[in-house]
Amino acid sequence: MTVRFGLLGAGRIGKVHAKAVSGDANAKLVAVADAFPAAAEAISAAYGCEVRTIEAIEAAKDIDAVVICTPTDTHADLIERFSRAGKAVFCEKPIDLDAARVKACIKVVEETKGKLMVGFNRRFDPHFMAVKKAIDEGRIGTVEMVTITSRDPGAPPVDYIKRSGGIFRDMTIHDFDMARFLLGEEPVAVTATAAVLVDKAIGEAGDYDSVSVILQTASGKQAIISNSRRATYGYDQRIEIHGSKGLVSAENQRPFSIEVANGDGYTRPPLHDFFMTRYTEAYANEIASFIAAIEKGATITPSGADGLAALKLADAALQSVKEGRLVKID
Amino acid sequence: MTVRFGLLGAGRIGKVHAKAVSGDANAKLVAVADAFPAAAEAISAAYGCEVRTIEAIEAAKDIDAVVICTPTDTHADLIERFSRAGKAVFCEKPIDLDAARVKACIKVVEETKGKLMVGFNRRFDPHFMAVKKAIDEGRIGTVEMVTITSRDPGAPPVDYIKRSGGIFRDMTIHDFDMARFLLGEEPVAVTATAAVLVDKAIGEAGDYDSVSVILQTASGKQAIISNSRRATYGYDQRIEIHGSKGLVSAENQRPFSIEVANGDGYTRPPLHDFFMTRYTEAYANEIASFIAAIEKGATITPSGADGLAALKLADAALQSVKEGRLVKID
Amino acid sequence: MTVRFGLLGAGRIGKVHAKAVSGDANAKLVAVADAFPAAAEAISAAYGCEVRTIEAIEAAKDIDAVVICTPTDTHADLIERFSRAGKAVFCEKPIDLDAARVKACIKVVEETKGKLMVGFNRRFDPHFMAVKKAIDEGRIGTVEMVTITSRDPGAPPVDYIKRSGGIFRDMTIHDFDMARFLLGEEPVAVTATAAVLVDKAIGEAGDYDSVSVILQTASGKQAIISNSRRATYGYDQRIEIHGSKGLVSAENQRPFSIEVANGDGYTRPPLHDFFMTRYTEAYANEIASFIAAIEKGATITPSGADGLAALKLADAALQSVKEGRLVKID
Amino acid sequence: MTVRFGLLGAGRIGKVHAKAVSGDANAKLVAVADAFPAAAEAISAAYGCEVRTIEAIEAAKDIDAVVICTPTDTHADLIERFSRAGKAVFCEKPIDLDAARVKACIKVVEETKGKLMVGFNRRFDPHFMAVKKAIDEGRIGTVEMVTITSRDPGAPPVDYIKRSGGIFRDMTIHDFDMARFLLGEEPVAVTATAAVLVDKAIGEAGDYDSVSVILQTASGKQAIISNSRRATYGYDQRIEIHGSKGLVSAENQRPFSIEVANGDGYTRPPLHDFFMTRYTEAYANEIASFIAAIEKGATITPSGADGLAALKLADAALQSVKEGRLVKID
Repeated sequence: MTVRFGLLGAGRIGKVHAKAVSGDANAKLVAVADAFPAAAEAISAAYGCEVRTIEAIEAAKDIDAVVICTPTDTHADLIERFSRAGKAVFCEKPIDLDAARVKACIKVVEETKGKLMVGFNRRFDPHFMAVKKAIDEGRIGTVEMVTITSRDPGAPPVDYIKRSGGIFRDMTIHDFDMARFLLGEEPVAVTATAAVLVDKAIGEAGDYDSVSVILQTASGKQAIISNSRRATYGYDQRIEIHGSKGLVSAENQRPFSIEVANGDGYTRPPLHDFFMTRYTEAYANEIASFIAAIEKGATITPSGADGLAALKLADAALQSVKEGRLVKID
Repeated sequence: MTVRFGLLGAGRIGKVHAKAVSGDANAKLVAVADAFPAAAEAISAAYGCEVRTIEAIEAAKDIDAVVICTPTDTHADLIERFSRAGKAVFCEKPIDLDAARVKACIKVVEETKGKLMVGFNRRFDPHFMAVKKAIDEGRIGTVEMVTITSRDPGAPPVDYIKRSGGIFRDMTIHDFDMARFLLGEEPVAVTATAAVLVDKAIGEAGDYDSVSVILQTASGKQAIISNSRRATYGYDQRIEIHGSKGLVSAENQRPFSIEVANGDGYTRPPLHDFFMTRYTEAYANEIASFIAAIEKGATITPSGADGLAALKLADAALQSVKEGRLVKID
Repeated sequence: MTVRFGLLGAGRIGKVHAKAVSGDANAKLVAVADAFPAAAEAISAAYGCEVRTIEAIEAAKDIDAVVICTPTDTHADLIERFSRAGKAVFCEKPIDLDAARVKACIKVVEETKGKLMVGFNRRFDPHFMAVKKAIDEGRIGTVEMVTITSRDPGAPPVDYIKRSGGIFRDMTIHDFDMARFLLGEEPVAVTATAAVLVDKAIGEAGDYDSVSVILQTASGKQAIISNSRRATYGYDQRIEIHGSKGLVSAENQRPFSIEVANGDGYTRPPLHDFFMTRYTEAYANEIASFIAAIEKGATITPSGADGLAALKLADAALQSVKEGRLVKID
Repeated sequence: MTVRFGLLGAGRIGKVHAKAVSGDANAKLVAVADAFPAAAEAISAAYGCEVRTIEAIEAAKDIDAVVICTPTDTHADLIERFSRAGKAVFCEKPIDLDAARVKACIKVVEETKGKLMVGFNRRFDPHFMAVKKAIDEGRIGTVEMVTITSRDPGAPPVDYIKRSGGIFRDMTIHDFDMARFLLGEEPVAVTATAAVLVDKAIGEAGDYDSVSVILQTASGKQAIISNSRRATYGYDQRIEIHGSKGLVSAENQRPFSIEVANGDGYTRPPLHDFFMTRYTEAYANEIASFIAAIEKGATITPSGADGLAALKLADAALQSVKEGRLVKID
């Protein structure tokens, strides 16, 4: 079976998914839609697919699944529309910045027996997958303490930050998902601190740029998250899990594994400086997983419920900062 | 000038300091006292010093300084007695488990113009010293986020734990001191989570074995501490400081730097399995620093005030766990 | 300009190049030929190219370049035929196992003003390219000593070995090319030792499985090569260059960068176990370089002369082993 | 039993041994002799031993063993004198630069049933000992290929080089000993190249500064040695052993295990810059081993025969360079 795709949104991340779909032996990119014709035409030219309207893709009989890469505020509506249209849906995170809206959207997906995958791409990074596999194989015993370090090479524009929902919902949300993925048990309490250390303009926009979070599960497992909107040495993405029998960790990735030694010491190059080069393989694996789940009729993860759970942790973290207390998750 | 020493307490850590003092060209171990004559005799035989009573050392004219390695509940009293006797005092941490008692003791030291050094040995580890030096030289710009991972190979006996003041005052206290040392600014708020994941008996004794802590300073700098009473791979002691211009970290230490590769992968040996082999150089540097400060009449650090500050953070962390909220430091 | 390709040989390495050519925006795979129709059909089906005979490709007006992946003993003939036919030629190493035949072939290429690239893929590995760049930028000063470690996970079948020209011409030849690439000066003398340590059958076939080589240039620069047909820990491929101002090295590559720690120590996974997964990027870069050189009319390297130079070093190494002496290169 | 020591030679290395002997619970430094009274007095003052003449130490009844740290050209004579005097002898390498003289000296040691240890200190480095232990435990199967990299931070003065016997007898000799130690089988053939790349004055003094050596044993095991009199990044001392079941290696050592990351990359400090700080533990372990062997009446290694074997390899390497051929060891 070949899964036939429509792509909604032909921007930066849309191109990544267009390439992944086109390069997958079990999928075909049939059509692309974008508010900017030139963007859609470029994808069309590169991968030989048609340019269509969203409505046409919605109604198309030659399309089985869509990839939603449009602006965040359109995600929930499009998920609902395409679920009703009987298409499997892959949607970039987040479903919405408002938890109530996310819940309503998930309800529609359930009612329509829709298939929805949310784009937490990091679960598909080969190194993080190997970490998860090591845990699942029992190599570190019972998971006890998770440590996630996630730092961006630089802050996004303040205009973006204003629309982003804030650092917890925009950036830390990936780490909340990763923590849930690795803990193997739902966090029931969140405590967090936050500050503006990188750029005052971020604070003036009502957001933070440097945050620390602790999650705790009912049995006492703990996850620590450290985030910064700054990292001079590249895109810092590390996870470490301490268990009853051992420790497993994933190292940072760099484009070139060389080392130069001289009187100043031994120097390895900086890390990847961009999430798209860092997570190239993750994006490809992610779409391949979506395609495989559709083909096999298998359960799709990360699901809408995963998207909601991560968002709730983000909301709780923000509340913890505002109120100076541990916030329980209902 | 040779600094002439009396050693109070000839147990495990007393032996370490006896060796350090004896091996220091600027110091001489003159006398040792211990409630168990055999222990004192062993030190006497090994290093050629006299066995005396505490009272005799207190009154001795041939002793300039003492090293207090007796049980915790005697520390404050002995610090006061020997400060009054005009001896410089090096005391193993903690001064006392009760902050009020520590304050009173520090007051006596001040009134007597005494010299007091508290045994936060990790400040003298050559690798951590190199980290501090890198910060002080401006190599990472302004400190923003400190991450301290500190895990013991195994839990101490429950009997010890009952008398220890709990994990925050016994174990995390080293990390509180290290965080203060590295942040360069006092923490003003503490939030913590704690659980019993390693040994139920620890929970039954009213303590925790797995804790996570966030400290925050007035300017928003944050320090994260992760502690466990278990680590199958050895004595895990890492620090990492993220700043505006870069990152500096100290790696774990192992007795043998070899690697064996085969079909199972590339394996380096476990870490040191004991704090005394891990911190051999730190203990020697610590006493050397004490001796040098006495010789030069220099300010002694870590001081009694450092001991008190770390204890307050420990108290606040415990309160944060009990009350489920961020606790401000007065 | 789009470079239009014919592929000669649809085996394992042919598939790699078919994928690389098809995925390159500046190239098109037009036709494939193979003695086994099924192999050619498979490439045709996967990449939408025609199946043709070698003769048809030779005569084709819609083909600018060929990739030769046929058996070694056909290489020289095909290079000559396609050079005469005015096609640019990429040929897998070696041109031939006999230096005289290689010389004759290169002469034909020159006479026909042909374009020939020899498939020393390792020059295009991103990590080794980064090493070369560091040298070229002067980061280690003048190159003095090169060390190349190259070990295969396991020996090829003895039948293959019998036809391979022996370890120096089959395996070490990659390292001879890499040494030339890195030394920046031609080796003028070779000394080598060789033994059968892995598999007696290899010795019975007249070959060796464990060899050590030293190359020396006129100015005294030295390169050491260590080869084994066995490595339990994966495909071991390291280079290190020591210069007047410093050292640069490329680390081994593994598919998963994780580490598991427990009582046995800290273990990272084995290396890649296959040259095609290890050098995936190198193969793609290599063809991209060939295409770019054709487009720009630029000089192509590694050239036929590079292929000949490496073969001469292999011949000299074997002679050194047989005669127990340093062998000079003419 | 306490082994009572006389120290012959109070220079740089004499001081190291004086400290090691004095700090050893089973040994006592009784006397020191040196042609320069001030040097001997300094040792006497620091460790409380007597200053005596060599003759007095030779005749002394209160001395069981001597440590010879005098100039190289006195070693063989002193070994013979003190063996005849019934003292156990530890002598810094080399016994002599002339193999015939060494043989004669060893003969005297045998005739007098003397005990002689030659100072190949690297065998006692804890990391290299751990490598040897891994081999002896069978963790890498049968040893096949040994790689030793040994580079000095800088060249010694040309005056020293003129008296040193040349790089093979002065510097590489440590690696010859290490290769023999690790191969577990005697090398029977040597081939080497040598050049002057660091300092022309070294060449004018008749020596080389950059050499590469291959040793081979009767069964075909090979050891590669790479030496340079220059290393901008510190004292480079690595060993790696490839066996039938795996690989074991010892990493370089640096005084501070920290890493600083910024836009230039991840930088660890340079290595130790001096053999005495790099091999501090090795020197202490070496003398402890000598003392333990005397106490237990055990066989002493490395022995005079080990010293001779390494020297023969050095002579053979030089001959190989001069004659451009593989040199067989008788």
